[in-house]
Amino acid sequence: MKPSIPKGTRDYSPSQVRRQNFIFNTIRTVFEKYGYQPIETPVMENLDTLLGKYGDEGDKLLFKVLNNGDFLAKADLAALDRRDSNAVVSSISKRGLRYDLTVPFARYVVMHQHEIQFPFKRYQIQPVWRADRPQKGRYQEFYQCDADAVGSDSLMFEAEYLLMIDEVFNALGLSVEIKINNRKILAGIAEIAGIAEQMVAMTVAVDKLDKIGWDGVTNELVKNGISEPQVEQLKSLYECKDFQSLQEALSDSDIGLTGVKEIKEVFEYLKSITLKQTVIFDPTLARGLSYYTGCIFEVKSREVEIGSILGGGRYANLTGVFGMPGVSGVGISFGVARIFDVMQELGRFPDQIDQPIKLMLIALDQQCHLASFGLLRQLRQNHIVAHLYPEPAKLKKQMKYADTAGTPYVLLIGSEEVQQKRYTLKHMKSGDQWQLSLEEIIEKLKP
Amino acid sequence: MKPSIPKGTRDYSPSQVRRQNFIFNTIRTVFEKYGYQPIETPVMENLDTLLGKYGDEGDKLLFKVLNNGDFLAKADLAALDRRDSNAVVSSISKRGLRYDLTVPFARYVVMHQHEIQFPFKRYQIQPVWRADRPQKGRYQEFYQCDADAVGSDSLMFEAEYLLMIDEVFNALGLSVEIKINNRKILAGIAEIAGIAEQMVAMTVAVDKLDKIGWDGVTNELVKNGISEPQVEQLKSLYECKDFQSLQEALSDSDIGLTGVKEIKEVFEYLKSITLKQTVIFDPTLARGLSYYTGCIFEVKSREVEIGSILGGGRYANLTGVFGMPGVSGVGISFGVARIFDVMQELGRFPDQIDQPIKLMLIALDQQCHLASFGLLRQLRQNHIVAHLYPEPAKLKKQMKYADTAGTPYVLLIGSEEVQQKRYTLKHMKSGDQWQLSLEEIIEKLKP
Repeated sequence: MKPSIPKGTRDYSPSQVRRQNFIFNTIRTVFEKYGYQPIETPVMENLDTLLGKYGDEGDKLLFKVLNNGDFLAKADLAALDRRDSNAVVSSISKRGLRYDLTVPFARYVVMHQHEIQFPFKRYQIQPVWRADRPQKGRYQEFYQCDADAVGSDSLMFEAEYLLMIDEVFNALGLSVEIKINNRKILAGIAEIAGIAEQMVAMTVAVDKLDKIGWDGVTNELVKNGISEPQVEQLKSLYECKDFQSLQEALSDSDIGLTGVKEIKEVFEYLKSITLKQTVIFDPTLARGLSYYTGCIFEVKSREVEIGSILGGGRYANLTGVFGMPGVSGVGISFGVARIFDVMQELGRFPDQIDQPIKLMLIALDQQCHLASFGLLRQLRQNHIVAHLYPEPAKLKKQMKYADTAGTPYVLLIGSEEVQQKRYTLKHMKSGDQWQLSLEEIIEKLKP
Repeated sequence: MKPSIPKGTRDYSPSQVRRQNFIFNTIRTVFEKYGYQPIETPVMENLDTLLGKYGDEGDKLLFKVLNNGDFLAKADLAALDRRDSNAVVSSISKRGLRYDLTVPFARYVVMHQHEIQFPFKRYQIQPVWRADRPQKGRYQEFYQCDADAVGSDSLMFEAEYLLMIDEVFNALGLSVEIKINNRKILAGIAEIAGIAEQMVAMTVAVDKLDKIGWDGVTNELVKNGISEPQVEQLKSLYECKDFQSLQEALSDSDIGLTGVKEIKEVFEYLKSITLKQTVIFDPTLARGLSYYTGCIFEVKSREVEIGSILGGGRYANLTGVFGMPGVSGVGISFGVARIFDVMQELGRFPDQIDQPIKLMLIALDQQCHLASFGLLRQLRQNHIVAHLYPEPAKLKKQMKYADTAGTPYVLLIGSEEVQQKRYTLKHMKSGDQWQLSLEEIIEKLKP
């Protein structure tokens, strides 16, 4: 049999693991610096916990785990005999793979509420699963990398996230644009334009402004039953790019004014602080997730054309669905897969990331091989990345191995060398060679 | 609804994540030093890859993932109507959760054989799943932490593993006993005793020697049809604890002599090297897994009574089952959960592992809160773990928060302090307080 892996999943080669860990470690360092605490939750959650949290479409995209043992014994036989897959599921599957890190986090907060001191700042870097149709760049198993601060309404956290985002992308060596908006401003705009009921349709359409322009947006809005004069008014509202004019335009909407006030307060926190990355207030920013209720964030690369590489925002009620009301919070989620692609395309991963082997020891007989093993240990203790060919094979075979591997140096160890404790170091490309003691080799090759 | 998690799974609190990462990072550092490369494989594997690799019992313990969509449409209807759960599975489930890291690694080697230069040294730290009945200390989801070197028969790798094991446990601050044996010695002993056919029964029984003594072992062997004189001969063979006497006792068994020769060669490599931990040759060591064919390893704590905390060995044929013969290798697997328990019981985790917050900033009004946010940034840039209470609440409330959290210092920031740029630092326990500039605070608190 020829083995394969499921569609939509992938193996990570050593080089990919190292690159991904470079991104994770960079983000983790910033999270830790700002006092965020790591948690991990199980890959399998009870389906009760997951179902109904991501809409009907999300429910379909959950991977369900078959109950163990004689699962048909407790199956819904009527549904089975009707061949009704949807109706059968709950009787043969109790567990599913997590779909994101937010719902498990909400579940964690509720279950551990008595151990937690609020506000609680946590981060979590773990894979999630979605049964989406696999396509280029879209996988069924992928990492998410989230930070959330829950149990406080303070806008200080929004300001803190802007600092953290700035620091992460600075450390990665990427140039980005950070967009900020507030859902309450969107509600205000809809209210003033007299289309409060159609706010979702409005945000969905305006979200596409970059791609389809105002003509396209107008078409879509009109299709949704919004009149042309209303669209004109929307357009003029959206064109207020500074707080002053927006405040005037929204003066008849309490919620809209609150939104502007909140964003202004976020910027107040940052007044004495200079960020390296660009932060832009963009009233057209909507973000898809319907649970956001306050400030929302999005980050895009300024160097590579790709979707957003970070999203986030404030939500009024994280844990209500699990019977614990009143826990609001704000969080961000890094799009690690896209950040990986941007780093790769721009060649921004550090050169030394693959820790190439600097030196291969070549022993010419079994006695030399045993002696070389001791040398190898001393080289490694001096932080020289080295290895010994696993057996005293023919010189030509060992040299060919080092050449294929691209090892810059080899060390030749024959019985005379072992006796005199001076070894032949050879530079593969130039062919230069030296007779050196172990101390001299360490001196020459140490990092 | 009260949320819960599936039986046999668990949440990791911040403190548990940090402790577990301390163990992972210690092991990872040693793996990297010895040239092992990280890989990651998907959580879901095709059931074809997993089934039949762990025996009938293992097949039952695999978690199977239900096919998405209308899975009954392709179900085996005859089996369904017979309510035959076992027979139905393959028609409604194509994927399963990985059961260990060895089979996915074998699958990886076969799929990526043309990118890999052999010998290939890889490590992998990822969770695995088994539908075992949950009990104290046994979970359905747990981490494995494996290193393997494949594509070479060289006994240098066995010696290298002994060094790596020594270094890991030294770095963790644990005292352990490393046992080594060779399956060929066991085969030799069985051959000499005339019970080559019952070798598995023999190793299973002798493996319990520590617990049940020779009387118990004799009973079990006799039950398996081994005669009392044969048991007596076995006993005398097992009592050869040095290579010389074992070699003489096994002189009529080629395989037995090869086993002794192999172990002696491993020790030859270590002749000039002093290990801190104890290494013991133990001919009664058997290790359960039937695929081992050469040297086998086991590690036990010398301080805490608990099962083995590492196992490993050489196998002749890793990838044959996937159609790629001739790939032998040797590997080890750290029992991270037990190592965690040992570290915890002995209090060996470093004190600073939880990175407690050193300082909480207390702002007395909104203007001070904004100013404090700038101070906080400068403290963090100087590596002081600090946070600002998220709003300018009443002093008493903020003080109580710091007290509950156990924060050693608070910094009081009122409007006068902001103006004069001197702040009140207070030590919570002693009540001592000082008027200090930011620079003086950094000097006093920096790590």
